[in-house]
Amino acid sequence: HTETSLSDKMTDSWELDLIKLSQEAMGKAYCPYSKFPVGAALLTTDGKVFTGCNVENACSNLGLCAERVAVNKAVSEGYRNFKAIAVCSEVVDTYITPCGGCRQVLLEFGQTWIVLMSKPDLSYEKRTVVDLIPMPFVLKIRD
Amino acid sequence: HTETSLSDKMTDSWELDLIKLSQEAMGKAYCPYSKFPVGAALLTTDGKVFTGCNVENACSNLGLCAERVAVNKAVSEGYRNFKAIAVCSEVVDTYITPCGGCRQVLLEFGQTWIVLMSKPDLSYEKRTVVDLIPMPFVLKIRD
Amino acid sequence: HTETSLSDKMTDSWELDLIKLSQEAMGKAYCPYSKFPVGAALLTTDGKVFTGCNVENACSNLGLCAERVAVNKAVSEGYRNFKAIAVCSEVVDTYITPCGGCRQVLLEFGQTWIVLMSKPDLSYEKRTVVDLIPMPFVLKIRD
Amino acid sequence: HTETSLSDKMTDSWELDLIKLSQEAMGKAYCPYSKFPVGAALLTTDGKVFTGCNVENACSNLGLCAERVAVNKAVSEGYRNFKAIAVCSEVVDTYITPCGGCRQVLLEFGQTWIVLMSKPDLSYEKRTVVDLIPMPFVLKIRD
Ligand SMILES: [Zn+2]
Ligand SMILES: [Zn+2]
Ligand SMILES: [Zn+2]
Ligand SMILES: [Zn+2]
Repeated sequence: HTETSLSDKMTDSWELDLIKLSQEAMGKAYCPYSKFPVGAALLTTDGKVFTGCNVENACSNLGLCAERVAVNKAVSEGYRNFKAIAVCSEVVDTYITPCGGCRQVLLEFGQTWIVLMSKPDLSYEKRTVVDLIPMPFVLKIRD
Repeated sequence: HTETSLSDKMTDSWELDLIKLSQEAMGKAYCPYSKFPVGAALLTTDGKVFTGCNVENACSNLGLCAERVAVNKAVSEGYRNFKAIAVCSEVVDTYITPCGGCRQVLLEFGQTWIVLMSKPDLSYEKRTVVDLIPMPFVLKIRD
Repeated sequence: HTETSLSDKMTDSWELDLIKLSQEAMGKAYCPYSKFPVGAALLTTDGKVFTGCNVENACSNLGLCAERVAVNKAVSEGYRNFKAIAVCSEVVDTYITPCGGCRQVLLEFGQTWIVLMSKPDLSYEKRTVVDLIPMPFVLKIRD
Repeated sequence: HTETSLSDKMTDSWELDLIKLSQEAMGKAYCPYSKFPVGAALLTTDGKVFTGCNVENACSNLGLCAERVAVNKAVSEGYRNFKAIAVCSEVVDTYITPCGGCRQVLLEFGQTWIVLMSKPDLSYEKRTVVDLIPMPFVLKIRD
């Protein structure tokens, strides 16, 4: 199931739990072209988790990042209010950070929620969305 | 929940059922910029359904179509074998067809599965993926 | 210079000339991630040629195909009426065809213009845009 | 012609000249869906300018921003070393900033070059690329 209640799995901290869920999701990555799996786990303000992985395509620009898969999934289930997203990869020497495209998509749903950028050992950096996309591009919605 | 078993809801034909599920999903569309909601419902070969809607962005090219949302969702849950996808919109005078980007993404997971392109009255056109993207662009996966 | 007058270079047939220009453009490809260079050459109705190559990105979905680079380039110079586009790659055993995303972008500027899909030996397949994206997705422009 | 030598047009400052060129380019925008024209002008390290405008599509996610049009154009002509990019729109009350997707594409070609974000009155904000996408996502290129 897509929805998981984070509280059911909580041990020490929700941050670590969310990162672990992103690592599980990474196992579903479809990345035959890059061989570079990425995972994400998105926590809604009411405690639900939606996970994502990268999904690639023969035409590389038609693939999608893990973070955007998670966000689109949540929105398609009616959730638009988010508390945090965890991102993980297999890279051991740097924290994986969202690409600019993903930052813009996170921004669509709020500027001050949390992005957890992790390493495989569960260590992480924590920032808000707008920290990662300062002077954000936003558009007034037409009525 | 994202997963729905189609058989639970089957009445006359699976095609109509799938189109109805796509219409339900359209209700979740996030399309404040275009005001053009689209829905999709993807049926896996083992009978599960994943739904999608369009999810737009202030930067229009970072949004995503309903069909791709549904496919990415299924893949992120471990499903890569599909039987059919239904697509719907509010347009009454023409069957809504997938854009070229979506056709390429459908193609990634097989050439001969079914695309149902519907109108609000549940009438539809039925084609295979490759019917909609002849002379398909495919890439051999590197080992 | 981006603009080249095809007639200056015409030898036997404009199709072969356009394919040769696409092959020259392929030499500019920025594809450090896929190592799969692609070239395109777009002929406007008034005889100008705009060339393109694929331009990749560390985030693969933010790269762009050669065909779309050529089209965007032409549009940004004020050209929107096209006669043909040639596409080439280094693949010897199949004609390179545009991805679905590119077919949709070609379609934006007309259904019946020509797509030349080539091999390195200059042999090619010739189709109209709508041949490659039947039952096209189009949207009425709002006034 | 795509290439313009900035020095030919230099008056008071290169920043204002580049912004003016972006405003000219905005006149070429193809934006029938959003009615939101954007222009860009990209200055290479050897003084050439490539301009861009947004180019939209019936399928909104297959359009492209002005900044990326300019970068792809330059790369397709063999230029990959950039000094600055100017961005403009018709919005009078805020400086137009690049979307996250564009920031990622700018980043592909260096972290410390200049982004000029302008208003119609030629006033502007000046930042480096990495100022706009801190903790950047980069990938080591495989040999
Ligand atoms: Zn991303
Ligand atoms: Zn689509
Ligand atoms: Zn393409
Ligand atoms: Zn942009």
